[in-house]
Amino acid sequence: MTQPVEQGLELLPFYCPIEPALHPAVADIETRAVAWLDRMALPGVSRKRLLGTRSAEFFCRFVPQGVTHNVLAATLWVYWGFAFDDTRCDTGALASSPGRFLPEATRVQHALETPGGPGLDDPYALALHDIGARFRGCATPTQVRRFTEAHRRWLLGVAWQVANRAGDHMPGLDEYLRLRLGTCGGAPTMAMLEIGLGAEVPSAEMDSPRVRALTDCASLVAALDNDLHSYRKERLLGQTEQNVVTVLLHESPHSLEQAVHAAVCLRDRLMSLFLRLSHRVRRGGSAPLRSYVDCLGHGIRGNIDWALRVPRYQGLGTPGWSERPLDPRPDPLPYSTVSWWWDELRE
Amino acid sequence: MTQPVEQGLELLPFYCPIEPALHPAVADIETRAVAWLDRMALPGVSRKRLLGTRSAEFFCRFVPQGVTHNVLAATLWVYWGFAFDDTRCDTGALASSPGRFLPEATRVQHALETPGGPGLDDPYALALHDIGARFRGCATPTQVRRFTEAHRRWLLGVAWQVANRAGDHMPGLDEYLRLRLGTCGGAPTMAMLEIGLGAEVPSAEMDSPRVRALTDCASLVAALDNDLHSYRKERLLGQTEQNVVTVLLHESPHSLEQAVHAAVCLRDRLMSLFLRLSHRVRRGGSAPLRSYVDCLGHGIRGNIDWALRVPRYQGLGTPGWSERPLDPRPDPLPYSTVSWWWDELRE
Repeated sequence: MTQPVEQGLELLPFYCPIEPALHPAVADIETRAVAWLDRMALPGVSRKRLLGTRSAEFFCRFVPQGVTHNVLAATLWVYWGFAFDDTRCDTGALASSPGRFLPEATRVQHALETPGGPGLDDPYALALHDIGARFRGCATPTQVRRFTEAHRRWLLGVAWQVANRAGDHMPGLDEYLRLRLGTCGGAPTMAMLEIGLGAEVPSAEMDSPRVRALTDCASLVAALDNDLHSYRKERLLGQTEQNVVTVLLHESPHSLEQAVHAAVCLRDRLMSLFLRLSHRVRRGGSAPLRSYVDCLGHGIRGNIDWALRVPRYQGLGTPGWSERPLDPRPDPLPYSTVSWWWDELRE
Repeated sequence: MTQPVEQGLELLPFYCPIEPALHPAVADIETRAVAWLDRMALPGVSRKRLLGTRSAEFFCRFVPQGVTHNVLAATLWVYWGFAFDDTRCDTGALASSPGRFLPEATRVQHALETPGGPGLDDPYALALHDIGARFRGCATPTQVRRFTEAHRRWLLGVAWQVANRAGDHMPGLDEYLRLRLGTCGGAPTMAMLEIGLGAEVPSAEMDSPRVRALTDCASLVAALDNDLHSYRKERLLGQTEQNVVTVLLHESPHSLEQAVHAAVCLRDRLMSLFLRLSHRVRRGGSAPLRSYVDCLGHGIRGNIDWALRVPRYQGLGTPGWSERPLDPRPDPLPYSTVSWWWDELRE
């Protein structure tokens, strides 16, 4: 087990000056979530594998001060999302057929959004309908709307990834960043933060380009962390397409070590931007917005802490923490998907 | 020219007790839109065909009291949408390949949403980026966000339709209604009403299930009207898949005349619901919400008035107006996509 990829990962600690956090009711939330999963009986994924996602721990790291009942509802979606991802997005008959994935994606989206009975018998659709009903019961209509729109964004991103896989297309880096923002599930996950907190962020704040940029920046940092964590797993399973490391390897003549180094540089520049932009957004922001920004930070840190323990990533050891970014340059990355985020630092 | 389909259409006037309306600056808006189109030079569609969509007239019927500058920006999107629809969704290399449509759809969505340069040279992406910049200049961040989310919903719906076409799949009626709500472009069109009006509807109202149901109901009535109008055109062009008439013909043993009759009954029941639900929404609603509801009604009527004159539908004569619905039953239609809308009539 001394392959270069592991050495590469072990060499490079992440820059993440955010303290760890965890909701105190995590054990209770997990117990109740597991009971729900047993009732829902999602096919195609084993109970062991599903519980091994530690989704309760995952989301409890994101909203340490959340309302327990609401955090449970959000946690159910995280479990559901991992199961759907495993059985319908990453592997299986739909994973390389956009023509088969799209009807399934729109079916579950309908189940999520429709208050009445969704008229469906697919267990995934029924489980998601139940989650939608819970959100309508504990969240405001605007929070629910934001979540459902973010959920659609995720599904469209996954459909695009499925199309790339079907066409054996390897995206360039800018295109990949855009794709990854869709596929990573960051949008629906971050949309559940204010649901978990039980405090609606005013629309004038939440819909501003600045807060949109900050939210996507947090999602992308977490997604790139997952790319680095999962690269070894995906290599073992032969699924190494569409990962930031393989995209970099494909785009220019890097060695594997150079590609991992470049990926961490990219990720650390985004992390630095997140910290600066968080500071900018907090200034003058409402209390719910400030709590939301805190949770975005908890999310970045929590995602790493979770990944280092979770069986999904096969117990990679800790990469350790770096005091400073591998690439300290404060100027924008030259990729259209993200470069405008730096403009939002302005006064 | 005495085929049964024409007779069927001529026999059945629409139930639509809403007065016609038109923005007084329509001629000026059209002139400025045409100048923009000439600058943008969208490929694949002739100038004549594009101007023949009468998109300025179309949208000016929706917001007769709108702010001229804002109505112009919205009008540009209507022209753009028709061009994109014709060249990328309904015909051409992408129209039956979800794997090719999805990268294009996500590319233009990115151009719409990204404030900085989108890093693209596709004329459709550049034109849509220009429209996005106009919206950011004249609308609130929340209005822009609602439009961009609605735009994504449209593109996902079209992708699904493309997948159905590729797989030669004819949906059942419930599935079709859900599909049609996505493909019809009603969501982005209706999201431009409050931009045209220059008055933001508060999120607590706009995101409520009741207003969502009313908005989708208006879109679906207009979409079914378009289905009926375009059925003849599509028959001539050999594109008769995925139209409410063909779906009904496919689902049960109807004659063509019976299928058209059933389609108008369905449409008229939705029209009746729209009127009742409008009344319910208006009661206690804010002034911007009431104006928005007015515009939804103008939209239904305006869409018909526009369709009867536009070359796109080859100058069908007026079907005339009916005083009462062909099917007067007030109870919910038994399709999960729409049945919950009737629940929103409750106190």
